[in-house]
Amino acid sequence: MSNTNIPYKIYLEENEMPKEWYNVRADMKKKPAPLLNPATLKPVTAEELGHVFCDELVAQELNETDRFIVIPQEIQDFYRMYRPSPLVRAYCLEKKLGTPAKIYYKFEGNNTSGSHKLNSAIAQAYYAKKQGLKGVTTETGAGQWGTALSMACSYFDLDCQVYMVKVSYEQKPFRREVMRTYGAAVTPSPSETTEVGRKILAEFPGTGGSLGCAISEAVEAATTQEGYRYVLGSVLSQVLLHQSVIGMETKIAMDKYGIKPDIIIGCAGGGSNLGGLISPFMGEKLRGEADYRFIAVEPASCPSLTRGVYAYDFCDTGKVCPLQKMYTLGSGFMPSPNHAGGLRYHGMSAILSELYDQGLMEAISVEQTSVFEAAQMFARVEGILPAPESSHAIRAAVDEAVRCRETGEEKTILFGLTGTGYFDMYAYGAYNDGKMSDYIPTDEEIKKSTDMLPDIDSISSN
Amino acid sequence: MSNTNIPYKIYLEENEMPKEWYNVRADMKKKPAPLLNPATLKPVTAEELGHVFCDELVAQELNETDRFIVIPQEIQDFYRMYRPSPLVRAYCLEKKLGTPAKIYYKFEGNNTSGSHKLNSAIAQAYYAKKQGLKGVTTETGAGQWGTALSMACSYFDLDCQVYMVKVSYEQKPFRREVMRTYGAAVTPSPSETTEVGRKILAEFPGTGGSLGCAISEAVEAATTQEGYRYVLGSVLSQVLLHQSVIGMETKIAMDKYGIKPDIIIGCAGGGSNLGGLISPFMGEKLRGEADYRFIAVEPASCPSLTRGVYAYDFCDTGKVCPLQKMYTLGSGFMPSPNHAGGLRYHGMSAILSELYDQGLMEAISVEQTSVFEAAQMFARVEGILPAPESSHAIRAAVDEAVRCRETGEEKTILFGLTGTGYFDMYAYGAYNDGKMSDYIPTDEEIKKSTDMLPDIDSISSN
Repeated sequence: MSNTNIPYKIYLEENEMPKEWYNVRADMKKKPAPLLNPATLKPVTAEELGHVFCDELVAQELNETDRFIVIPQEIQDFYRMYRPSPLVRAYCLEKKLGTPAKIYYKFEGNNTSGSHKLNSAIAQAYYAKKQGLKGVTTETGAGQWGTALSMACSYFDLDCQVYMVKVSYEQKPFRREVMRTYGAAVTPSPSETTEVGRKILAEFPGTGGSLGCAISEAVEAATTQEGYRYVLGSVLSQVLLHQSVIGMETKIAMDKYGIKPDIIIGCAGGGSNLGGLISPFMGEKLRGEADYRFIAVEPASCPSLTRGVYAYDFCDTGKVCPLQKMYTLGSGFMPSPNHAGGLRYHGMSAILSELYDQGLMEAISVEQTSVFEAAQMFARVEGILPAPESSHAIRAAVDEAVRCRETGEEKTILFGLTGTGYFDMYAYGAYNDGKMSDYIPTDEEIKKSTDMLPDIDSISSN
Repeated sequence: MSNTNIPYKIYLEENEMPKEWYNVRADMKKKPAPLLNPATLKPVTAEELGHVFCDELVAQELNETDRFIVIPQEIQDFYRMYRPSPLVRAYCLEKKLGTPAKIYYKFEGNNTSGSHKLNSAIAQAYYAKKQGLKGVTTETGAGQWGTALSMACSYFDLDCQVYMVKVSYEQKPFRREVMRTYGAAVTPSPSETTEVGRKILAEFPGTGGSLGCAISEAVEAATTQEGYRYVLGSVLSQVLLHQSVIGMETKIAMDKYGIKPDIIIGCAGGGSNLGGLISPFMGEKLRGEADYRFIAVEPASCPSLTRGVYAYDFCDTGKVCPLQKMYTLGSGFMPSPNHAGGLRYHGMSAILSELYDQGLMEAISVEQTSVFEAAQMFARVEGILPAPESSHAIRAAVDEAVRCRETGEEKTILFGLTGTGYFDMYAYGAYNDGKMSDYIPTDEEIKKSTDMLPDIDSISSN
């Protein structure tokens, strides 16, 4: 039954906006396993984490009990600069597919960072400012997270130091210039500014760098400068907490118009967007109040949920961050140069890993050319050029909608459109020229990197 | 008196959206001078224009009497994919400037074309489709108009042939790939596909092309292929008509909350955005119902209103399009490589030229580095990375707001934020590196090109 009073795009009114983040761990009977200190292999303490992260973020990282956490007014003020994001009914896509399914997407790309990353960047910058810090450090590959963080730091007048993988710094200068426009100091990594950088440069002169190296430099910069902390754009539970604003807004909008999704789909790299989108819906499922199908979509080239193992592993190739129990391909796994840079992560959020392990969420993997095929179709009918990452979710939503066409089911499908592809035109160009290739790692490759997982005795979680 | 019930961002409800375009010429006592046929130098007829443009668009081009023209439902359907655009109160910018002025901006950048150009592209594509045409041709420089047109043609399944200045095609491949993703055929100009292209290539082998040459190729392609017409993204009165949706939405939103702007500011290249934004407000002024200050902001490097002459001139360097009476620097004027590519036009909309000549609108010119300074400030406090073109309006709005700080006046300033700068990062990079320079043409340069204006006896308009 279609309700003709439902707007094409739903924007919440200001007084309807969520004032709290939702912490899905509070409703999980079996919690994610604790983070481990890489030096002692014991559960990490707040004090230990406090050397790397801001105090309040450490508290959020370790908070498994509070269901709701109030969004500070300063963050709400910033959110209203680009939120609410619209919840859009994809009428043109439905028509194109000839499906009886109703397709909705929550579009997070209408801000200059071009993605949902800003939701957590502003929170992390706020707590750093509140703690009286001078600045924060981070790493970035393609630059989405670095861009979001530079915008957030500019707003709170915090120093922002971004270590950008050198090959991206040189070959993809656009996001670099966006970051600089927002006042960030962007350093190609490896650099002469850190000990670890100098060591790598001495050993591999002329190297183009790697994300692992950039993380190591950023952490060293944070821990050796007075008044600095390190921040991270995905994977961590605090990030999923901040990103729950996506799901909260979506749920408020859907409840307002009596829409109930049957299937909720998101792309999954570190898990921040998917975790944020599904959180309040998953809460209902965990409390037995409603049922939904959740589908994580990952690239076939980096299939941590669908082909990885559930084990403790390092979050970074430099092995300086705490260990986390998660679905992982091994921190030594080298993903192929898939264009969806934001999904090239060997592991997965501990929360999502645990939910997946409990059978509460499904996961699939999709190949790159089929993703760009869906991206191009979506762009042509819905008018938004999607990011390659987001297009993984589009691919899965299209496939589900086509299944509905075959079965005649009028399912309601919701997916997260995390961002725009304006800085991914080299990838689109390769697709337009028919020069895009798919890559699926062999079982041997995955076994090789998962065989090298750290040998840690099973530690009981809680 | 501040009204605390005014939202931070005003989005019209679907039932509040304008259903008609407003034709400002209907309220002008003295109308713009008629277009002239370049072959006969007589006022061009509908039949003559019909060889180049779609019939319905010709009718709109020549319509000086109907105050309102209904927006066809199909175009309204497309508009709702990215409209309403938000009217935003720039609280953070006001705070940064310490001004008592209230600053609002109408933001047209939240669509994949990245600018307001889509408002007219979809209208022109619709009328071409309605006429049963196979496709349209156009030229593009930096690619904003070409991108918008390719999106519109994709939606209506029309063939879209874009002649892109060769040097841009090669050096700025990103918008080219956006166009191709939307299915447009993008040809570097000059090309072997047209007679004029072959002639130019024979004479100047290896040339990087020019906008004038691309126009000539696009017009030739339209008039020599069965079922094709040529379309243009600015300057024409039909384009200002379509762009009036910007001003209509703005006026409805402001009226709803009892906001009355004192000053309305827009950047001015060909005039489509400025003309669209100010139209309904100008209508009130023309009818004596209200008064507003209107300010056109143009680059100091291409100052058609502030330093040009009001005379008949060719709209294109190829001299194949009708002649128009307008403020012009001469069709032979070669603007310096200013980064705001969308403002590098030697002339100006005939409507705006006539309004300016009647003293109903002001014009100023601003230099490039001061424009980027304003752009960077705006990005840092308001969170949107503006297009260089749009930033001309930001510069002027900031200057007016600073004046209010000095006088203590609580003026309400409205400006048009026409688009985003995501594809302009080379220019931002030059600014970030301190390598941006200003260029102001000398009086001799302007005299040289205006001395070469066509020698046309004064023709009485109406």
